[in-house]
Amino acid sequence: MLIEKHPQMRLVFATAESQRGEAIHIGGRELTFIGTEEARLGEADLLFSALPHGTSEPWVRRARAEGTKVVDLSSDFRPGNRTTSKKIDRVPYGLTELCRKEIEGADLVANPGCYPTAILLALAPVLSMDMLEEGSMIAVTAASGVTGAGYSARPELLFAEISEDFRAYAAGNVHRHLLEMNAFLTSHGGSCDLVFTPHLLPVARGILATIVVRLKHELEEVLEPWRQVYATESFVEVSETTPALRDVVRRNVVRISAVASANTKTPTLVITAAIDNLMKGAAGQAVQNANLMLGIDETLGLPA
Amino acid sequence: MLIEKHPQMRLVFATAESQRGEAIHIGGRELTFIGTEEARLGEADLLFSALPHGTSEPWVRRARAEGTKVVDLSSDFRPGNRTTSKKIDRVPYGLTELCRKEIEGADLVANPGCYPTAILLALAPVLSMDMLEEGSMIAVTAASGVTGAGYSARPELLFAEISEDFRAYAAGNVHRHLLEMNAFLTSHGGSCDLVFTPHLLPVARGILATIVVRLKHELEEVLEPWRQVYATESFVEVSETTPALRDVVRRNVVRISAVASANTKTPTLVITAAIDNLMKGAAGQAVQNANLMLGIDETLGLPA
Amino acid sequence: MLIEKHPQMRLVFATAESQRGEAIHIGGRELTFIGTEEARLGEADLLFSALPHGTSEPWVRRARAEGTKVVDLSSDFRPGNRTTSKKIDRVPYGLTELCRKEIEGADLVANPGCYPTAILLALAPVLSMDMLEEGSMIAVTAASGVTGAGYSARPELLFAEISEDFRAYAAGNVHRHLLEMNAFLTSHGGSCDLVFTPHLLPVARGILATIVVRLKHELEEVLEPWRQVYATESFVEVSETTPALRDVVRRNVVRISAVASANTKTPTLVITAAIDNLMKGAAGQAVQNANLMLGIDETLGLPA
Amino acid sequence: MLIEKHPQMRLVFATAESQRGEAIHIGGRELTFIGTEEARLGEADLLFSALPHGTSEPWVRRARAEGTKVVDLSSDFRPGNRTTSKKIDRVPYGLTELCRKEIEGADLVANPGCYPTAILLALAPVLSMDMLEEGSMIAVTAASGVTGAGYSARPELLFAEISEDFRAYAAGNVHRHLLEMNAFLTSHGGSCDLVFTPHLLPVARGILATIVVRLKHELEEVLEPWRQVYATESFVEVSETTPALRDVVRRNVVRISAVASANTKTPTLVITAAIDNLMKGAAGQAVQNANLMLGIDETLGLPA
Repeated sequence: MLIEKHPQMRLVFATAESQRGEAIHIGGRELTFIGTEEARLGEADLLFSALPHGTSEPWVRRARAEGTKVVDLSSDFRPGNRTTSKKIDRVPYGLTELCRKEIEGADLVANPGCYPTAILLALAPVLSMDMLEEGSMIAVTAASGVTGAGYSARPELLFAEISEDFRAYAAGNVHRHLLEMNAFLTSHGGSCDLVFTPHLLPVARGILATIVVRLKHELEEVLEPWRQVYATESFVEVSETTPALRDVVRRNVVRISAVASANTKTPTLVITAAIDNLMKGAAGQAVQNANLMLGIDETLGLPA
Repeated sequence: MLIEKHPQMRLVFATAESQRGEAIHIGGRELTFIGTEEARLGEADLLFSALPHGTSEPWVRRARAEGTKVVDLSSDFRPGNRTTSKKIDRVPYGLTELCRKEIEGADLVANPGCYPTAILLALAPVLSMDMLEEGSMIAVTAASGVTGAGYSARPELLFAEISEDFRAYAAGNVHRHLLEMNAFLTSHGGSCDLVFTPHLLPVARGILATIVVRLKHELEEVLEPWRQVYATESFVEVSETTPALRDVVRRNVVRISAVASANTKTPTLVITAAIDNLMKGAAGQAVQNANLMLGIDETLGLPA
Repeated sequence: MLIEKHPQMRLVFATAESQRGEAIHIGGRELTFIGTEEARLGEADLLFSALPHGTSEPWVRRARAEGTKVVDLSSDFRPGNRTTSKKIDRVPYGLTELCRKEIEGADLVANPGCYPTAILLALAPVLSMDMLEEGSMIAVTAASGVTGAGYSARPELLFAEISEDFRAYAAGNVHRHLLEMNAFLTSHGGSCDLVFTPHLLPVARGILATIVVRLKHELEEVLEPWRQVYATESFVEVSETTPALRDVVRRNVVRISAVASANTKTPTLVITAAIDNLMKGAAGQAVQNANLMLGIDETLGLPA
Repeated sequence: MLIEKHPQMRLVFATAESQRGEAIHIGGRELTFIGTEEARLGEADLLFSALPHGTSEPWVRRARAEGTKVVDLSSDFRPGNRTTSKKIDRVPYGLTELCRKEIEGADLVANPGCYPTAILLALAPVLSMDMLEEGSMIAVTAASGVTGAGYSARPELLFAEISEDFRAYAAGNVHRHLLEMNAFLTSHGGSCDLVFTPHLLPVARGILATIVVRLKHELEEVLEPWRQVYATESFVEVSETTPALRDVVRRNVVRISAVASANTKTPTLVITAAIDNLMKGAAGQAVQNANLMLGIDETLGLPA
């Protein structure tokens, strides 16, 4: 648990309907899971909300009414997914490295989905430098470990089903994360068709995204855009070699590489990015955002 | 071993420099591995040659001189890879379903690489029907189990390295299989940029290819081109659902699906194809070709 | 499905409450799962019953009343577990190699548990030759792939829980299989304490049992008892080297080895045995028994 | 790397013949691997020696001649394995919890093997309380992840060989670790036959030992001996439930449980113990010993 080791955070309460009454041990203290309605939200400075998609708004509203800041890990307040009432609008998007200004001091932040975290951080430099061929395709194939699908006991997540297997899922669909990415791309001037195909890997943790894009013209030094954009970042690693899951597991980093594709008539890049879906893709980035919202050092309590 | 169960094949000899003298049991008989120079090539009607890439030609020439037909599993005679002398030219490409005419009765056939088998069989219908947007990108991301990398004891193939990991390799490179696929595409009228990024999966067997292409216009019935082209094939399965490795492992089939991508301005397809790299991607297709070369039933000895 | 390839069996119906109405394809025919109450038991010569433990008796009684023979795969009729009424007594135990006489021509057979199959076949030779030290301990540690625990979606069988883990379960408990093994040992003159500790492996299929026993005296030729007892068996492999799961997976065999333990004062053997829990440990042995019950060749339809 | 995070240790040099000249990054500093003959041993207060078994003595002697303390991770100075000259005798055995007195202030300590660490820590309480049945058998079945076998690229450690497999190895053999354990047992008054059967697991890290012993008499409270012996230990966890690999991986602990076996005539215990073979089974225990040898807090730099 990240908060346990965070030098300036202390867990006030933890809610869990299905485990209500069960004790947990956090940093030497014992805490008991409580139901959401018992939570004294006002006692906390900041709430990490991880309710299921579609159920977050009233809970977040309650917290805000008591003056508690919120990092919301559901999709409810993310760009492209905002199904909630208009009362809470303009919620900053918690893609920390790209939206830091809006997050600093915010009261509510929508923590990004795991796939969009890896993919948008990988795409941002070519986007911001306006390097993509007008109207071309951004082909994103990504693969996630099983914890990306949650811990519920679904038959298709059994060891006997996952082991020695690999498959795409939701191919072609209007995936929640596709909406989130398209909203971000549109608001950043993108005109390309994003095609997103997620896959399920026989590993516990980690996401690897492989992104193929067409450029307006060749790059002299392929990694230069990423080096420039992320020069001062603590949690972004720009790498000469393609990243592997084991480079990033249990760490709050995204590791990105890019290479020009051989034998193509149009200049083409293959960009690869890896994150730990439970860290930079979820809880780690949530703490990173919380640090900013509370005005403390962004890197506190995070394993880089 | 496929030959053991083949009703009309009988193994005459098996060579293996490193295991020379070791006994194997095939179908109740005991055979001893011999060195290549001991092999009495003329005693066999057909030779399956699985020498390393770059070393096959003299051995194949020896077999042909003695009148023995050859299915060569190296890349040496494949389109785009032919580094051998000009004396043996116009070797039929053993992508059975697409090149059957040339294979029937041939004396020498170049068995395709595992990735090209899955990818070209998946692409052929949109190619032959001239459906691809002129000059557009064909983005191919493929993932293979570790047996695709051979059985040599390389440190990067150790369990402790592969387990719980996933990574791209050879991204952007002029991969042997890219040359093979480009040669095929060019000879079939393709004008697109093929971008091929292989990945290494923590599974023993199987290849999944995810292919994204742009079309000239929408398709009414997405799977129709595949259903039409492969209507009478025994070893091609066109599927409504995306194929998984476990659908094809230990079987001599390719399983293909396709779906239109949502939310794109240009009509776009996501095509997925799965094979067992050791069966349809190697030995199985080799037997399929051998059957045709010997004029016997193409499906004999093959688990569909 | 084994019956599909069996040259003298034909599936008449298949019941499955939870999948009722779903179609399956068996050997080119389409069958629809039906509920148990719809089954016309009398139309079948033999029924494979795989109902949950504790629910089998009425169903088996119905089948017997219609003259249909039954191989019951639940524990309900197994030695040591017989919780059913006394009306059906003396049900032959379907450990084929050791109880063949009673199985031949029987109308009802209790198919053994997966662990007992591996363990009792491994122990039988030292038991029948009265070689075990009187009153000594038989220490059995066994490990099973996850399919041994059934296919239900229990949280502890999720990939994220099983992968990279290993643990004992039910240690010290009165496990259903312990009762089954103790009943067999007692009826075969055993006076030893059987201690059985099962473990859960991060693999899909297979059981490996490691059995340590003390002997009355040293053996000159350690494997001799097994070679003697199983000399004519088709589905028992006595091996010089310790068996591995991959030696037996997808095959209806038990593979057994034994070695004298170094540096002990009392002569001690380490016996290891491997089976595929879904084949020799379940469906394979069930077909083997059915063949005997129907008076046909015991090996028909079984991959050795 | 544990030393990197150790608050009172600093790496002076690192040797590696095969990687000589390669740079590593440790805690922000860059170090270059050097050959053993270049190492200025005298500059270090303490040397962690991890040379292959049988090659350690001259190197250790060199270090001792320069006044450097040594934790030796080879088997060369371990009890039962001491093949070295008599000049260095009575080397303390680094099983920290059981030999702390001898380790404190020692100049040279023989760090235990991974299996003996788990097994002897699990056995010690029943041994020291003289509870084992005279002359009975101690049946130890243990299973290790592949890193226990080293990182060399041996064919049998390839993913394609290990995945979905499980097997015993060295069954019955005079294993190096058996000698080590027997020497310890003998010197602690044991009269039992230790039978040790290691197995290879398809996981990267971790050892689970399952130990079956016969007692002189029943225990009222089974876990009491362990609770008593390890009451004040930081790195021993006595658990009501059987330990799993994931309870201990990446932590410098041994987790032990015990349960009485049901249905035995002689009182019998099943003891299970789990460690991370790379932590408590190797580097972690080495640092624990080094801390004691240097007179600093035993727990410094170790993740519990």
